[in-house]
Amino acid sequence: MISFAGGLPNPDFFPVEKIALAAERVLRKDGTAALQYWITEGYLPLRDYIAQWQSRKTGRHITPEDILMLNGSQQGLDLIGKLLINPGNDVLLEGPSYLGAIQAFSAYQPSFHHIKIYDGGPDIDEFDDAMKRIKPLFIYCIPNFQNPTGNLYDQYHREILARNHSASDTIWVEDNPYGEIYFEKNTMPDFYSLLPEKTVSLGSFSKIISPGLRMGWAMGPREIMKKMAVVKQASDLHSNNLAQRIIYQFLLDNSLEDHLTSIRTFYKEQADFMMTSMKQFFPDQVKWIVPKGGMFIWATLPEELDAATLLVKAIEQNVLFVPGQNFYVGGLQGSNSLRINFSHSSKAEILKGIKILGALIRGFLSGNR
Amino acid sequence: MISFAGGLPNPDFFPVEKIALAAERVLRKDGTAALQYWITEGYLPLRDYIAQWQSRKTGRHITPEDILMLNGSQQGLDLIGKLLINPGNDVLLEGPSYLGAIQAFSAYQPSFHHIKIYDGGPDIDEFDDAMKRIKPLFIYCIPNFQNPTGNLYDQYHREILARNHSASDTIWVEDNPYGEIYFEKNTMPDFYSLLPEKTVSLGSFSKIISPGLRMGWAMGPREIMKKMAVVKQASDLHSNNLAQRIIYQFLLDNSLEDHLTSIRTFYKEQADFMMTSMKQFFPDQVKWIVPKGGMFIWATLPEELDAATLLVKAIEQNVLFVPGQNFYVGGLQGSNSLRINFSHSSKAEILKGIKILGALIRGFLSGNR
Repeated sequence: MISFAGGLPNPDFFPVEKIALAAERVLRKDGTAALQYWITEGYLPLRDYIAQWQSRKTGRHITPEDILMLNGSQQGLDLIGKLLINPGNDVLLEGPSYLGAIQAFSAYQPSFHHIKIYDGGPDIDEFDDAMKRIKPLFIYCIPNFQNPTGNLYDQYHREILARNHSASDTIWVEDNPYGEIYFEKNTMPDFYSLLPEKTVSLGSFSKIISPGLRMGWAMGPREIMKKMAVVKQASDLHSNNLAQRIIYQFLLDNSLEDHLTSIRTFYKEQADFMMTSMKQFFPDQVKWIVPKGGMFIWATLPEELDAATLLVKAIEQNVLFVPGQNFYVGGLQGSNSLRINFSHSSKAEILKGIKILGALIRGFLSGNR
Repeated sequence: MISFAGGLPNPDFFPVEKIALAAERVLRKDGTAALQYWITEGYLPLRDYIAQWQSRKTGRHITPEDILMLNGSQQGLDLIGKLLINPGNDVLLEGPSYLGAIQAFSAYQPSFHHIKIYDGGPDIDEFDDAMKRIKPLFIYCIPNFQNPTGNLYDQYHREILARNHSASDTIWVEDNPYGEIYFEKNTMPDFYSLLPEKTVSLGSFSKIISPGLRMGWAMGPREIMKKMAVVKQASDLHSNNLAQRIIYQFLLDNSLEDHLTSIRTFYKEQADFMMTSMKQFFPDQVKWIVPKGGMFIWATLPEELDAATLLVKAIEQNVLFVPGQNFYVGGLQGSNSLRINFSHSSKAEILKGIKILGALIRGFLSGNR
C-alpha cells in the first residue's frame, strides 16, 4: 500500500541513537526525579529552553511562566476547547482546516464558521466581514504550511489581519506544528509576535524530533496559561516527566538547527519530486498550492470530480490519500480536492502512486469511471 | 519541611537502572517505531500483557481490545467525564473521595452525591437507598485502600452491592491505583469481576513502577472502550509510545511480583511505624481506619477540632498534611479529619512529624489554640 494519506513525519529523521543517549544521561543524572510525579506546568529547564528560543524568534520577552507543556499540541486544542468554549460559542476556522482541531473542539459544541483559505491567506474583506458578523470567541488558524493546504500566510495578510483586529476581544489560536519545516527561511512574524496579549500559540516537537514522545507546548497570555494548567491538572496531572527531560537533554547535546536543516532539505526535495511527478502524470486541469514548507500538497480536481470516489478506485490499486471534505466541518465542502502527504513515502512510491492517481483522474475526466 | 500531604510513592522503589536498560533495549530493538505516531488504543504487546495479568486476577477473559492505554489513570477520569456526563447528571461517589476525581468530573458539571464510607465499605441500606433515590449515571469508587481513607471494601460489601445492583443501569467506575499495594494478600473480587458488563476499571503503573511515566489504563465493556478511544484521540491522539514500550520491556525483563513484594513489605513497615508513632504521640480521642494497604491513613479528630486550623499551626512547625474537607465536594464535610501519607517520608521524619502533630492536637484539646 502506498500511503499519501497520513501526516507522518519521515522516520529516517528520528534521532534514535541520540534519544537513546539522552535517555541514558537523564536517568543517570536525574535518577528517581525523572520518574516521580512532576508539576503540571512541566519541566522548568525545557520550558526555559522553549521560552528563550521563542523569544529569539518572536522578538517578545517570553519566560517559562508563559509556557505550558502538553501531550503533543493536540492536547492544547482540547484544553482550549475545555477552557473557553460554551455550547453554541462561535469559532472561526480556516476552510479547509485541521481535522483533529475540528474533532477536539467539537466535544465542546461550538458553532463553527469556515473562512476560505487562498494561497497567501484568507481574503481580507471576507475575513473582516466574518469578524464583524460573527464576533467569534476565537479564531483557529495554521499560518505556517497549513494542514491540509500547505498554505503560508504572507507578510501582508499577517500584518493587515493583526492590525484590523487588534482591538477585538477575539482570541487567536495559532497552531504551529510545521513552522520550522520551511523550504526557504521564513522570517514572517507569527500572530503571537503581532498580538501577544491575545494569541495562544501551540508548538510541537512531533514534526521535528519525534511524535511518539507526545511533546508539545502552549505559549500565551499568562492568565490563560494559568487557567489551562488548572484544566490540564484535572485532565492528566502532568505530561510525561521522563520524556520532557529526554527532549531537553537531546536539545542540550545536539544542534537543533543542524537537525532541522537536514529535515528541511529532505522535505523540500520530496515536495519538489512529488510536484514534478504530478506535473508529469496529472492532467493540466488539476491545480495545487505550491507548498513553501510542511508536509502536504492540496490538489484541486475539476469541480465535477469527486475525490472520495477517486479514493475508492485508488484503494483498489493500493494508493491512499485523504479526500478534501474531511477537512470541513460536516464534510460539506471540498469534495473535489485531496490532501497528499509528501513527507513519508519513498521517491519510488511517490512516482508509482502519483502515476496511478494520474491515470485514474484521466480516466474520470474521459468519463470512464 | 516534613510532608505527609502528598500522594507520592517512595522514589527508593523506582527501578531507575532497570528503566534505563529497558529504554536502551527498546530503542535498539524497535528503533524509529518507538518514536513514531501510534494508535490511540496503545501498544498492543503492553495491552496484551495487561489483559493476561487482569484475566488471571479477575477470572474473566480479558483481551487487548478491552484495554485502552491512558496518560495515567487520571486521564481515564477525564475521558469518562467527557464521554458520559451531561450537565446535571447524577454521580454517586464515596464520602470522602479522591480530590482529583472530583476535579476531573467537575469540568462536566454533574450533580455529586456522597455516600459515607466506613471501614469495610458503605452502609448497605444507605447505599441501596441512595441508588433508588438518585439512580446515578455512575458510581465512582476506590474499593482497594481508598484515597483518602485507606478503606478496603470487605468481601461481604462487594458481593452484596454487586448483587443488589446487578439489574440497574448505573455504571461502576472502579478506580484501582493502589490494588497491588496490599499488606496481606488481597483475594477479594474487584467489581470488574463481579459486574464486568457495567464496570470500567482504571489501573495504573504510577504507584508500582513510576508515576512520571504517566501510564495507566482503562478496562471495561468493549463498546465503552471504543467510545473512550474516540474521545482520547480528539484529546491527545495517543499516549507516549516510547514510555509504553519501556514499561512493557521492564515487565518482560523483570519479575513484577518480586518488585511489588519489596514495595508491599516496605509500605507495611512504614504504615506500622506511623501508627505506632500515632499511638505514642496522639491523644486517645484521635481515631483512624487501620489501612490494609495503599499509602494513606485517615485520622479523625474530636468533632470540635478543625484540621484546617491544625494545619496552619503545623505549617509553622514545618509539618504538612491534607485536611479532610478537601476530599468532599464543596469542602462541606470532614473538617475534623486529616489524610496522612506514610509512603514518602523517612522513619525519622515520621517520628518527628507525628510528635509535632500530637503536641499540637493535645494543645488544641486543652484549649490552648
